[in-house]
Amino acid sequence: MSTVLPSDNPENDPRVKKVFDDIRDTRKTDFINNIWRYLAYDADLLERTWEEVKAVMATPSDLDPLTKEMLYLAVSIVNNCSYCVHSHTAGARAKGMTQAQHAEVLSIVALASKTNVLATALQLPTDPEFLLDEE
Amino acid sequence: MSTVLPSDNPENDPRVKKVFDDIRDTRKTDFINNIWRYLAYDADLLERTWEEVKAVMATPSDLDPLTKEMLYLAVSIVNNCSYCVHSHTAGARAKGMTQAQHAEVLSIVALASKTNVLATALQLPTDPEFLLDEE
Amino acid sequence: MSTVLPSDNPENDPRVKKVFDDIRDTRKTDFINNIWRYLAYDADLLERTWEEVKAVMATPSDLDPLTKEMLYLAVSIVNNCSYCVHSHTAGARAKGMTQAQHAEVLSIVALASKTNVLATALQLPTDPEFLLDEE
Amino acid sequence: MSTVLPSDNPENDPRVKKVFDDIRDTRKTDFINNIWRYLAYDADLLERTWEEVKAVMATPSDLDPLTKEMLYLAVSIVNNCSYCVHSHTAGARAKGMTQAQHAEVLSIVALASKTNVLATALQLPTDPEFLLDEE
Amino acid sequence: MSTVLPSDNPENDPRVKKVFDDIRDTRKTDFINNIWRYLAYDADLLERTWEEVKAVMATPSDLDPLTKEMLYLAVSIVNNCSYCVHSHTAGARAKGMTQAQHAEVLSIVALASKTNVLATALQLPTDPEFLLDEE
Amino acid sequence: MSTVLPSDNPENDPRVKKVFDDIRDTRKTDFINNIWRYLAYDADLLERTWEEVKAVMATPSDLDPLTKEMLYLAVSIVNNCSYCVHSHTAGARAKGMTQAQHAEVLSIVALASKTNVLATALQLPTDPEFLLDEE
Repeated sequence: MSTVLPSDNPENDPRVKKVFDDIRDTRKTDFINNIWRYLAYDADLLERTWEEVKAVMATPSDLDPLTKEMLYLAVSIVNNCSYCVHSHTAGARAKGMTQAQHAEVLSIVALASKTNVLATALQLPTDPEFLLDEE
Repeated sequence: MSTVLPSDNPENDPRVKKVFDDIRDTRKTDFINNIWRYLAYDADLLERTWEEVKAVMATPSDLDPLTKEMLYLAVSIVNNCSYCVHSHTAGARAKGMTQAQHAEVLSIVALASKTNVLATALQLPTDPEFLLDEE
Repeated sequence: MSTVLPSDNPENDPRVKKVFDDIRDTRKTDFINNIWRYLAYDADLLERTWEEVKAVMATPSDLDPLTKEMLYLAVSIVNNCSYCVHSHTAGARAKGMTQAQHAEVLSIVALASKTNVLATALQLPTDPEFLLDEE
Repeated sequence: MSTVLPSDNPENDPRVKKVFDDIRDTRKTDFINNIWRYLAYDADLLERTWEEVKAVMATPSDLDPLTKEMLYLAVSIVNNCSYCVHSHTAGARAKGMTQAQHAEVLSIVALASKTNVLATALQLPTDPEFLLDEE
Repeated sequence: MSTVLPSDNPENDPRVKKVFDDIRDTRKTDFINNIWRYLAYDADLLERTWEEVKAVMATPSDLDPLTKEMLYLAVSIVNNCSYCVHSHTAGARAKGMTQAQHAEVLSIVALASKTNVLATALQLPTDPEFLLDEE
Repeated sequence: MSTVLPSDNPENDPRVKKVFDDIRDTRKTDFINNIWRYLAYDADLLERTWEEVKAVMATPSDLDPLTKEMLYLAVSIVNNCSYCVHSHTAGARAKGMTQAQHAEVLSIVALASKTNVLATALQLPTDPEFLLDEE
């Protein structure tokens, strides 16, 4: 049902193997999920995507890992990506998201989607109080 | 430039006044931003929207106020609501979002939007590992 | 601010003049709004677009003109087209949409956008009761 | 395949039972469709969502029930919610939508989505005739 | 699982038969894919849609057939249409798209989706250099 | 009107200066457009975004530069990014896009957006002919 066929032995390609090794090493797991197995059909695309995921999501930063994962989940819901909703719901749970927090993420995504369309429907002018001082 | 005209004296309507009083009281400020001033053209819509914003965003819960505001911002960016991007960027800053955290939110929204379309383009099957046990 | 420049005399092109004449005749007005003036930069695109608008929106059918215009408005809001939100809010008002009906359209668009993301977030299975009998 | 598991006995929770009773009473049917059964995993989210659906969709108003259901369907199509397209196509048919009216809804959603992207591609200025008088 | 049922003998309707004959003739194949078989439930919608597809996609023009098909694929990915992603990936391959070109299309769609949300998040002013001279 | 303020002297930051130098060198121009000037508020985000734009768009590949730019434009239109529609319309023209080709891009984006929603509305099953052989 996918639009490309994953290789049976993607790691025969040394560039793919290097990325997969780094995924396993970074995530401390042998599990390589489908997005990486399918992106392996093009080594450039695989490398660029993983480098960015590693830099943004797997590097200690000013946001904690659970917050980052919940942000990723919220975006995936709004973009309506079925694969990503599944993978990032699981990912957020693995990082400690409780059922109550999951319901809160959904409540916020739902409320924001609602007020977003209301603001668009009304073509609201931005309050000057929200603008940065550009002097 | 808006599609409805806000009233000069919206609080002449007691239902509107009650909502505006509750906004001021809940937020500890006299500032009523435009979405409320324009939604006041229909008291039902105003009341329902404010009740939900109050319940989801202004009630202590299992997510801290800054995380909630950053989730709201992320959704508003993906939904491409100009008014909402301005109001929730300002809102998150008011709740303590640093410049580095702002850049992280943008990095995650950008990365997720990218991997979302890749997963869609590849029509990826969901890994069984992500599914709940439905026995 | 547009990405193409409208001609000062678009009706010098006989194909454009024919479409504009038909717009005026169909709508019983001399007003040609901007989408037609700008689409006139390419006569094929202008003709195809107008023929479809005329067939779908300006031909008596099984839905009344106001219902059709409100549907057009609802889609334009969700697609976040600022020009279209303005033109179809005005268009629906010209066909008799009251303020209460406008607020209802907004309430439905907002509610649907909310339950749409909830259904996506939950990855709901479709109830068998909603499916057509395919025997 | 869903991201939360519905309870086998959701009505053991009195808050859930109260909502389900109200759904059955309001809709005059014993059928509780999946969105309610899955939202029952969080009573707050269930209650808030049902209250809004009841107020907007199940209360007599200035739009007839079929028009409201077709608007809901149009939004669900544009938001690309598979569950919602199924449930609201069935819902509109149950309220009397004929095959010809269904085809009209699709024709309008398709046409509007087309002119929406054209207006965006051209970055059209809004005609002054569409604006409200803000003096 | 579809929302309308295709007829077993759609070509009993002479308007449908005429369109199907033209599809077979234009595409030099006996294969009528599902979008046409299901749109046949409404002859107006079928005719209008095919006329436009024929004019835009099957008529020699200033863009070569592969480029047009890749553009169609890119739009289908961003609009998240599963059926269309499958049909236009297959269509582009039939017109000669290599695996490397497929990966490039995906790379561009992913990159553009990323910079699109960044530009929205930053609410960037348009550089005067990009604007047409409107004197 | 933007949500971050660009620095007056962004190149005082050596990381920013290095990226800007590379942009000028790669594009053979002194013009640094706004997305880079505003992304400079966070050097990580600036570097990552430019590296990807350079790799995908400014490196000789299996698609010619004009085709790539038209794909970028098509995605930007569907994602409804005003800044990006302006910058990539200008960019495609600079790479040789004629007025007729521009109108073709718009025709394809409009048609695809139309058939995309029709396929979603009908919940079409994918033709087996479009699927890869997964034996």
